[in-house]
Amino acid sequence: MRGDIWRGLASDNHAGVHPDIMQAMAAANQGHAVAYGEDPYTAAAVDRFRQHFGDNVEVFFVYLGTAANVLSLQAATEPFNAIVCADTAHIQVDECGAPERHSGCKLLSVATSDGKLTCDGIRPHLHGFGFEHHAQPRVVSITQATELGTVYQPEEIRAIADLAHAHQMVLHMDGARLANAAVHLGADLRRLTGDCGVDVLSFGGTKNGMMMGEAIVFFNTALTRNFKYRRKQGMQLASKMRFIAAQFDALLSNDLWRRCAGHANRMAGLLADELKALPEIRISQKVEANGVFAMVPPQIIAPLQAICPFYVWNESTSEVRWMTSFDTTEEDVRRFVADLKKVLLSCRSNAS
Amino acid sequence: MRGDIWRGLASDNHAGVHPDIMQAMAAANQGHAVAYGEDPYTAAAVDRFRQHFGDNVEVFFVYLGTAANVLSLQAATEPFNAIVCADTAHIQVDECGAPERHSGCKLLSVATSDGKLTCDGIRPHLHGFGFEHHAQPRVVSITQATELGTVYQPEEIRAIADLAHAHQMVLHMDGARLANAAVHLGADLRRLTGDCGVDVLSFGGTKNGMMMGEAIVFFNTALTRNFKYRRKQGMQLASKMRFIAAQFDALLSNDLWRRCAGHANRMAGLLADELKALPEIRISQKVEANGVFAMVPPQIIAPLQAICPFYVWNESTSEVRWMTSFDTTEEDVRRFVADLKKVLLSCRSNAS
Amino acid sequence: MRGDIWRGLASDNHAGVHPDIMQAMAAANQGHAVAYGEDPYTAAAVDRFRQHFGDNVEVFFVYLGTAANVLSLQAATEPFNAIVCADTAHIQVDECGAPERHSGCKLLSVATSDGKLTCDGIRPHLHGFGFEHHAQPRVVSITQATELGTVYQPEEIRAIADLAHAHQMVLHMDGARLANAAVHLGADLRRLTGDCGVDVLSFGGTKNGMMMGEAIVFFNTALTRNFKYRRKQGMQLASKMRFIAAQFDALLSNDLWRRCAGHANRMAGLLADELKALPEIRISQKVEANGVFAMVPPQIIAPLQAICPFYVWNESTSEVRWMTSFDTTEEDVRRFVADLKKVLLSCRSNAS
Amino acid sequence: MRGDIWRGLASDNHAGVHPDIMQAMAAANQGHAVAYGEDPYTAAAVDRFRQHFGDNVEVFFVYLGTAANVLSLQAATEPFNAIVCADTAHIQVDECGAPERHSGCKLLSVATSDGKLTCDGIRPHLHGFGFEHHAQPRVVSITQATELGTVYQPEEIRAIADLAHAHQMVLHMDGARLANAAVHLGADLRRLTGDCGVDVLSFGGTKNGMMMGEAIVFFNTALTRNFKYRRKQGMQLASKMRFIAAQFDALLSNDLWRRCAGHANRMAGLLADELKALPEIRISQKVEANGVFAMVPPQIIAPLQAICPFYVWNESTSEVRWMTSFDTTEEDVRRFVADLKKVLLSCRSNAS
Repeated sequence: MRGDIWRGLASDNHAGVHPDIMQAMAAANQGHAVAYGEDPYTAAAVDRFRQHFGDNVEVFFVYLGTAANVLSLQAATEPFNAIVCADTAHIQVDECGAPERHSGCKLLSVATSDGKLTCDGIRPHLHGFGFEHHAQPRVVSITQATELGTVYQPEEIRAIADLAHAHQMVLHMDGARLANAAVHLGADLRRLTGDCGVDVLSFGGTKNGMMMGEAIVFFNTALTRNFKYRRKQGMQLASKMRFIAAQFDALLSNDLWRRCAGHANRMAGLLADELKALPEIRISQKVEANGVFAMVPPQIIAPLQAICPFYVWNESTSEVRWMTSFDTTEEDVRRFVADLKKVLLSCRSNAS
Repeated sequence: MRGDIWRGLASDNHAGVHPDIMQAMAAANQGHAVAYGEDPYTAAAVDRFRQHFGDNVEVFFVYLGTAANVLSLQAATEPFNAIVCADTAHIQVDECGAPERHSGCKLLSVATSDGKLTCDGIRPHLHGFGFEHHAQPRVVSITQATELGTVYQPEEIRAIADLAHAHQMVLHMDGARLANAAVHLGADLRRLTGDCGVDVLSFGGTKNGMMMGEAIVFFNTALTRNFKYRRKQGMQLASKMRFIAAQFDALLSNDLWRRCAGHANRMAGLLADELKALPEIRISQKVEANGVFAMVPPQIIAPLQAICPFYVWNESTSEVRWMTSFDTTEEDVRRFVADLKKVLLSCRSNAS
Repeated sequence: MRGDIWRGLASDNHAGVHPDIMQAMAAANQGHAVAYGEDPYTAAAVDRFRQHFGDNVEVFFVYLGTAANVLSLQAATEPFNAIVCADTAHIQVDECGAPERHSGCKLLSVATSDGKLTCDGIRPHLHGFGFEHHAQPRVVSITQATELGTVYQPEEIRAIADLAHAHQMVLHMDGARLANAAVHLGADLRRLTGDCGVDVLSFGGTKNGMMMGEAIVFFNTALTRNFKYRRKQGMQLASKMRFIAAQFDALLSNDLWRRCAGHANRMAGLLADELKALPEIRISQKVEANGVFAMVPPQIIAPLQAICPFYVWNESTSEVRWMTSFDTTEEDVRRFVADLKKVLLSCRSNAS
Repeated sequence: MRGDIWRGLASDNHAGVHPDIMQAMAAANQGHAVAYGEDPYTAAAVDRFRQHFGDNVEVFFVYLGTAANVLSLQAATEPFNAIVCADTAHIQVDECGAPERHSGCKLLSVATSDGKLTCDGIRPHLHGFGFEHHAQPRVVSITQATELGTVYQPEEIRAIADLAHAHQMVLHMDGARLANAAVHLGADLRRLTGDCGVDVLSFGGTKNGMMMGEAIVFFNTALTRNFKYRRKQGMQLASKMRFIAAQFDALLSNDLWRRCAGHANRMAGLLADELKALPEIRISQKVEANGVFAMVPPQIIAPLQAICPFYVWNESTSEVRWMTSFDTTEEDVRRFVADLKKVLLSCRSNAS
């Protein structure tokens, strides 16, 4: 790594906190405020969510994305239920089994090429209703933008919602990167969620410039019954909640969410453009949000990681992931591409 | 409430963040850092803990106190175990059943007059070992300082640890307010924990000036086996962990933990001193940390809460709780006592 | 132990199966029957339950008493609830924490002198409703006859039911020995359960002459929602269910349940009568069902157990438990008393 | 259905109890026996298991197959683990999510054509070891004979065991129909289990002529640590355990297990032979145990089920399942085939 200030392409979780959000936290640090969300900052932040998502939504803050997903799913299920998701879904591969452990439910995963569920992929799991030997399908969970950097069109979401609702099921959206999807589509947040039939949304803050904090947004407010107890027992009721609330209030004000996500998306687009000139690198997914997935020569992975850490997505296909964030600079991208070229060259020389 | 800046005596969770800690968070907001604790801030904070608690401790950060307790207990138990605690313990009365839900264990509570377990109180629960019909006693959990503002002497902790260990049990300490106890006793942190035989400690930051964050400190490091998976599955692995770590690093530097807790304790002492002059108020517990418990005339509760919110501890005995914090001022205390006197006077007039 | 055929006073679970019930099982062993309860034997047994408990009850069979209790409680709760019970309740002391583990709930135990909850004992736990930090009280669970061989009067049950219902809580009865209580009171089964406001009953078969099998009887049928999935996921859906059903059909026919329990009660009465002549033995609980509890000289316990095994109920008070069953004979009782006298005499000699 | 005595081909769970086993239960019904497995019948049955499976196995009885599987898996895992199985496995599709609910683990299913896992199918799931975001693979679970009536060769089991052990994983076998597999292979029980590297086995009794009862056989006895508490808390500790034990003792004596399974297998073979003459029926799986799977014309399903109930295995492919059992007669098979021919004929006429 170089210098004191390092910014890489490994994860949008590696970024820090946007200055406007730091400022909002400092501003909230005045005197006392009632704990556990009974404070004016939380009330204001909830109002802000209603401006974006509709007057009737119910909003609950939690600390982190895994908890937003798990508590959303728990609110919609009983332990004998099943949850359908893509086999690349965060809930399936990145939460150490937390969804099963806390909800008791079975996860039914669907193979996809691009991280996006389709009705045809979901349908084979929609059977056995009423048969007590069979975990009862109850939730479809989609991720927007997906873990592969791709984005559902609103009509694709609508079709999945209709399918779910036709089976008395619920549609959950993991929106850890919903902002990136919305920017890509030029849509506002509600249009991609409640308006498409989403029942409950995990809305991400941490990956888009916040320090910590995710929101569970219920469009189907019947699911909030007893939710306050679930959040507390689920170890997600923040005592000094004002400091999550103030961050969200800032993120959802003055288009900050859109500016942060839009910048990250642009940097991913820039990276993708630069990579197209390199024949050894094959971009493997559409670049629609803030991630670039690519098949690379396996021998370059280790030397390149030594310069700039990143994750290998699939060892067997030599597919890697590069993520941009609100603070990625054009210079960061160009420097990375330059490093990549150097490593490619050096590997070519070694090979010849 | 008065004015924009309000500080009350309801809870140390109502306080904000100490300026030094805000400053440390801002300082940590430089460039990228590897997520999930693989960053230099976390390494430095763990080192700081080792300075205070011993070179061999293992330290894991989580978001909140309920999680610190639950994950500590889970690390020490299997679901068929039982956990002995005071019937005023936070794990028994303030965590919405999270310990049972997540660990699967039975809690066996002991009535106490002052929130402090004793060997005599614990012993009746230490039976049925090896009998499969009986939840197997495995943990004794004590709170230091207690939920009633009282403090265990080191030799009291040692005696409980010896009793637990003699039965192959583990001693857990809920140290949400350990700093307040240490100041009261004039002891360092290790002397009250590892040196007394504590196996695992929930060390509190939030109640002592931090924004969020608690640490699980393992003296008995055999209990850390597989703990990283438990924390992740337990929805407590912070992505931008540097911002919890930086807070702890600051709290444990320059005696900040001691100054914050010492100030809060002194304010509680001041409050108690002032109250002694009021015959209608009977202080019901020793004032050893940052809480004052008192029996008050029932009719003053509602009018006084309208001026300055606080919790009724026991409806039936008209016992109330007043908490001080790092930012409570002498003026806050005196103003509260003045308000209290006014309410007492007004109630007396009404009565006559 | 003597001879091939041994009958002791340790537990009604040590008895075998009543011949009429063995006969009913053999009779059910004809050809094939649809598994998992979709068979005519199960339908007939449910009808039989409705004759005894009312036309509107819903009945589900499970294998064993712990499961009947746990699934009853689970049907009535969500994991953030609390369950109030006596500190001698089977669910509190004899199920290895299964209620907490499977329901997620907290158990709140009440000390009693005779195993019987009272409204005064329950009331201190009925607070914190709506406060998310507090496990929400939802069930009162009583045992009829109690684990101490005592029996609730119908009006005592009614009073507890009224208290529970006034708090939107549910009354569960562990009726592992309901038959013994009903015989003692000269009442029919419904009068002591649904007619007194019991919402859900674990009705015992195994302790009253069956081989295995307990029934969950729902008077409050709203609690049966989704119960079939809970039973299956709870590992209690019997494949060859006809063999549990046939046993219950026989037990509830021709007054068999009453004859078995009545005989056991009479044998306990006989034992108590015989013991009254022995000044060293102090009967410690009312003998109302099929158990006799007594304080005995500690030194007789081991030698007497060597002749006839039984359980020590409370080591510290030297209280023991003797249980009779449907097959206990007068000779068994008299022989035991004779053995007891011999041991007493021998211990007296040793002491002098 | 016809007459009083009906025997169908829907499930081996629809059969009753073999007369020798009924006789053994009656013989065990003599006097009292210590409850919960501390009785001579249980000791004798465990000895019998050791004759078949090796002197060092540990054996625990439970009531039913789902519990045998769930408790086996629980013994081998912690909640952050993952379990690899075929997507047709009973634990994946027929237990209403009980494995996830009770173990907390994630199930990773593998598509197969014949219900048999292969090393190539398992391998893609064997990654992420040590990475805390990933549920840690810990168990491979295979079913012998499979849910599709096919049988693993010993060397196939050995290869899977070696793969599992090379990753510090455990091999579980669901042996609900192990007897049928052993007869097919002409092997004894140990040769297919412990000798092939199986660590823990669910050994089925109910599907092979018992009334109820399954055994968990541990070859890897390190997994039995604390198992007695898990069984009790798991609601599977039978009070009158002698009646499960006596059944197993009978089943494992005088080759009864082999005779029952052998007969069922022969009847499946007979059925398959008869069906080969019918061009409309395509047998879809090898007939190696006691099940016949076949693709049939969809229009015959309902009329044939009306005569003789059976399960449709896959609605979309019109695949059905017919099971034979220890008491299926040649006449049952021939009558069924005659019925089938009649229905085929009638459907043909309707079609023309």
